[in-house]
Amino acid sequence: MKVAIIMGSISDMPVMQDAIDILKEFGIETEVDIVSAHRTPEKLFEFSTTAHTNGVNVIIAGAGGAAHLPGMVASMSPLPVIGVPVKSSNSIDGWDSVLSILQMPGGVPVATVALNGAKNAGILAAQILGSHDKLVQAKIIAYKLGLKDAVNKASDNLKNK
Amino acid sequence: MKVAIIMGSISDMPVMQDAIDILKEFGIETEVDIVSAHRTPEKLFEFSTTAHTNGVNVIIAGAGGAAHLPGMVASMSPLPVIGVPVKSSNSIDGWDSVLSILQMPGGVPVATVALNGAKNAGILAAQILGSHDKLVQAKIIAYKLGLKDAVNKASDNLKNK
Amino acid sequence: MKVAIIMGSISDMPVMQDAIDILKEFGIETEVDIVSAHRTPEKLFEFSTTAHTNGVNVIIAGAGGAAHLPGMVASMSPLPVIGVPVKSSNSIDGWDSVLSILQMPGGVPVATVALNGAKNAGILAAQILGSHDKLVQAKIIAYKLGLKDAVNKASDNLKNK
Amino acid sequence: MKVAIIMGSISDMPVMQDAIDILKEFGIETEVDIVSAHRTPEKLFEFSTTAHTNGVNVIIAGAGGAAHLPGMVASMSPLPVIGVPVKSSNSIDGWDSVLSILQMPGGVPVATVALNGAKNAGILAAQILGSHDKLVQAKIIAYKLGLKDAVNKASDNLKNK
Amino acid sequence: MKVAIIMGSISDMPVMQDAIDILKEFGIETEVDIVSAHRTPEKLFEFSTTAHTNGVNVIIAGAGGAAHLPGMVASMSPLPVIGVPVKSSNSIDGWDSVLSILQMPGGVPVATVALNGAKNAGILAAQILGSHDKLVQAKIIAYKLGLKDAVNKASDNLKNK
Amino acid sequence: MKVAIIMGSISDMPVMQDAIDILKEFGIETEVDIVSAHRTPEKLFEFSTTAHTNGVNVIIAGAGGAAHLPGMVASMSPLPVIGVPVKSSNSIDGWDSVLSILQMPGGVPVATVALNGAKNAGILAAQILGSHDKLVQAKIIAYKLGLKDAVNKASDNLKNK
Amino acid sequence: MKVAIIMGSISDMPVMQDAIDILKEFGIETEVDIVSAHRTPEKLFEFSTTAHTNGVNVIIAGAGGAAHLPGMVASMSPLPVIGVPVKSSNSIDGWDSVLSILQMPGGVPVATVALNGAKNAGILAAQILGSHDKLVQAKIIAYKLGLKDAVNKASDNLKNK
Amino acid sequence: MKVAIIMGSISDMPVMQDAIDILKEFGIETEVDIVSAHRTPEKLFEFSTTAHTNGVNVIIAGAGGAAHLPGMVASMSPLPVIGVPVKSSNSIDGWDSVLSILQMPGGVPVATVALNGAKNAGILAAQILGSHDKLVQAKIIAYKLGLKDAVNKASDNLKNK
Repeated sequence: MKVAIIMGSISDMPVMQDAIDILKEFGIETEVDIVSAHRTPEKLFEFSTTAHTNGVNVIIAGAGGAAHLPGMVASMSPLPVIGVPVKSSNSIDGWDSVLSILQMPGGVPVATVALNGAKNAGILAAQILGSHDKLVQAKIIAYKLGLKDAVNKASDNLKNK
Repeated sequence: MKVAIIMGSISDMPVMQDAIDILKEFGIETEVDIVSAHRTPEKLFEFSTTAHTNGVNVIIAGAGGAAHLPGMVASMSPLPVIGVPVKSSNSIDGWDSVLSILQMPGGVPVATVALNGAKNAGILAAQILGSHDKLVQAKIIAYKLGLKDAVNKASDNLKNK
Repeated sequence: MKVAIIMGSISDMPVMQDAIDILKEFGIETEVDIVSAHRTPEKLFEFSTTAHTNGVNVIIAGAGGAAHLPGMVASMSPLPVIGVPVKSSNSIDGWDSVLSILQMPGGVPVATVALNGAKNAGILAAQILGSHDKLVQAKIIAYKLGLKDAVNKASDNLKNK
Repeated sequence: MKVAIIMGSISDMPVMQDAIDILKEFGIETEVDIVSAHRTPEKLFEFSTTAHTNGVNVIIAGAGGAAHLPGMVASMSPLPVIGVPVKSSNSIDGWDSVLSILQMPGGVPVATVALNGAKNAGILAAQILGSHDKLVQAKIIAYKLGLKDAVNKASDNLKNK
Repeated sequence: MKVAIIMGSISDMPVMQDAIDILKEFGIETEVDIVSAHRTPEKLFEFSTTAHTNGVNVIIAGAGGAAHLPGMVASMSPLPVIGVPVKSSNSIDGWDSVLSILQMPGGVPVATVALNGAKNAGILAAQILGSHDKLVQAKIIAYKLGLKDAVNKASDNLKNK
Repeated sequence: MKVAIIMGSISDMPVMQDAIDILKEFGIETEVDIVSAHRTPEKLFEFSTTAHTNGVNVIIAGAGGAAHLPGMVASMSPLPVIGVPVKSSNSIDGWDSVLSILQMPGGVPVATVALNGAKNAGILAAQILGSHDKLVQAKIIAYKLGLKDAVNKASDNLKNK
Repeated sequence: MKVAIIMGSISDMPVMQDAIDILKEFGIETEVDIVSAHRTPEKLFEFSTTAHTNGVNVIIAGAGGAAHLPGMVASMSPLPVIGVPVKSSNSIDGWDSVLSILQMPGGVPVATVALNGAKNAGILAAQILGSHDKLVQAKIIAYKLGLKDAVNKASDNLKNK
Repeated sequence: MKVAIIMGSISDMPVMQDAIDILKEFGIETEVDIVSAHRTPEKLFEFSTTAHTNGVNVIIAGAGGAAHLPGMVASMSPLPVIGVPVKSSNSIDGWDSVLSILQMPGGVPVATVALNGAKNAGILAAQILGSHDKLVQAKIIAYKLGLKDAVNKASDNLKNK
């Protein structure tokens, strides 16, 4: 049970690190690599056509600008692909990466999360694994209780001020 | 192994039918219902907190305008939730439903697909199930080969004109 | 006569403080809390279904990104709900929170104010109370005279430079 | 107890009729008029400065394009003003009226509803009146139960197909 | 022959100063004041209905957010009104002021210039005066020659580097 | 005293006719021609550099898409240039022509009116002429009174229904 | 000397036909095919890596939605690639295809033309060939003279009406 | 064999330098100049009508705001023109320059690259030259191999951390 996290450029790492961290928190194995749709197309093919035979269950792909990586991986892999739009420099406010990843044609879905939402990509990957693994699902339920606790504590702090 | 497909209003059905049809094509069981975040909030709670204990593995939720259904389900269910932005009448070109579903805060992801992309939501649900069920995965691989064949036939037709 | 001010996260407080301050200036009682649609859905239900029986006359709800809090409160409370779109980090220029709050479906209105417009939310709440309380209305009239005076003074300063 | 409904042009009537109808349904008195910020500025002044002394409790103002009517009324009346952005011909997809009404400066709020959302404007006016009139509030509660029933019936129909 | 320059708030002065400066450069008399559509509506009326009888030939009006000042002045004055969209804080990237000023309804034009384009507003005012005053027109022709010279000098510098 | 009305293509005529009609209504002489920035650049130069010596006082230029005509005329003529963004087929909702005309650089203003706002362009041209011709100004004042009458009549009709 | 014209789907043909027609008009050889980045990735690779060795000098690629075809071809071919954003059904007003094609990362350009601008793609391809082939360049010069003539005729018709 | 690089203002140089640098890297001759569509229209005409007779094969033109330079050059030159939208100060997030350059009418294409994408403009120019010069094409192939190497090295670094 493994989640592959790939990104188009090492410059996407500060955003994508959130996915790695949250999956580590859930105790889920990850493999991380740089695969550029536009600069290493052969590696893109190799990765996309073999991931499901290499023990990977879910793929997270992050990219910015005219972000073709998630969609191209999705075109070649039968695995669920989660796309993270990264707000790169020279982006037009992030709209380019959001629309390049979200608006896939019929037949080739990408599960898109919010702009720079790598943390949510990690949680979504865990939820996908958890849909057939009760231990992972239990961790997600616990994680959500933790979110609730944090809000409740903030609420208490506010009232006791 | 079951996919729940819910929508905010019966008027979303013409769009959401595509998800039902493609899942039927893959031989995957579905349950379909109308659950309105804004008009039946108790049903929303009931559905969201129990789906994972009722044999549901993946949830597809479609809604238009200020589309809160997918995100609210995601806030209460540990299952992966796929959101379908529906371009309703009086929508501002679909931007409202796209952003209301996509831009979820850290901790609560929704796997968003393209505007009116219910078909892709169904395929994504199948891919999620297929990530741990080799038979479903084989069907996805076959489906993608079918897409390729259709393009190749169109290409042949074009050349033989 | 009371205005409830809630927000999705403590990080919204710097924006929402303006609503608290202006209502204090009008001598109107407030209660302030953190209620997250996505992280504390039970609290959301509890708050929304009971506020009108707890002496609250108007609700102000602020949230960012895919901002579901104001709309979800509005779905369960018969009180007027004022929504404040907050421009959070990773927001797509604020469009996400504006559209998630504004574009509510028929039947469930949210009184939306400008991006980060918590001050105006407070004034609007006072105007709502003032629509049946002549003392509060008089304070609003006085407040508007104050706005006029400030502009006139700035005008005088400009001319005397 | 009365709601004034004004609009910038008779061409806005097909949209604004929804506000009149829903308020009639709630048994709330309305007065309806055409007041153009740009073509009848004196009438705008007269209306705005006197409405609160003429038995009006809430004002609904609808306008399209560079929609100045709601904001200008709000600048002169102490009453709560609800703005309805109308998608007029030659509008740039409705963005012009939405932003012209929503983005009011500090001190002068307009309670903005969705594009063409006159029905919600009527409901919001009723909620404002209902915040101090238990009979009206009871009607709103009943109205919301009706919305729920309609969804539940649609859900039943769907399942019995 | 006089150009009136008004703005909604003293905070618009850093932008609007460019209009004052360029008109001074052309030797054209200006009068400058703060007139807020939303905070001093009576002054707005007074100014707008009398400017053409007070020796003013052209009006420049700058405002931000839901910018109603230029359009409201245009509704009451027979003079040409030049609108300057100001990018204020909390603006949604300037779109709000641009659309609030540009998209005026049929019958009430505002001559809109670029976002923060106060300098161009001043030049346009001079061109309007110059359309019937050959001396002013000659100054504009000279000004444009100056623009050309500056570009040519930059070009020469570039080539001699 | 003459207004030149030019457009980039004969296909812009249905929109631009409104400018011709309203100026005829004001009794102002017009000359109308097709001048394409992209297809007849020499004619563009000829027209722009000579209009002010040919008895023209104001230029109205309409164009769609990447609309360069108004700005290029403004770069070569000392006359005030009014730009009309035309929503052509294949336009991206009119944004392209609006921004291509509005966002002129410092030194070269174009007086931009609303999308397809040729009527307002004609009125603005009349206001410019009227800023130094009391007869034309009187016609504008009369025209505005007519607008007021029409609204008042619509208001009366509404009340007498 | 040959231009390859490819498109992601046969449904793009009505738009892309314009490129074929104009190139035929210029007497330039074309080869036309359907190559889907998302459905026939192997064909995409095969085509992109070999086109420059098969006598192709310029590639025109049209696609809609999350349009990855032009950029992926550009990543693998040393030839100039012209991208045509196609406004497909379910597109968000064409923004998705425009941004997916235009905003390519550093190192991998796509020469993007206007939305549905296949005719211009054909002309651009001819201009590229004409940059080293004087006969083709002469045809382009003649074509532009034809554009001028058409405008001049329309201008004459207008004046003789 | 030469590429002309022009820009509307010396303030565009920091962006446009990338085009100069990459062409130098490819060993391709460049000539660089400032040509302002709005401030030096005669120079624009002179340059555009003669470039193809002065040994120039490709033109790169960069401009910001209402960017008319690339389109106007394209209207007068038979050469391929590459347009670089520059994000100038007071730009509306770059949308103005992107749309002013991209959305050219039928007959007059501009090969548009990404916002601030001068480097890609240079590469595209080289690809155009390379479409008939095998040595240049070989350099492009080598350049793309270099891009691949850089990604692979980053990938290795990541794995060896």
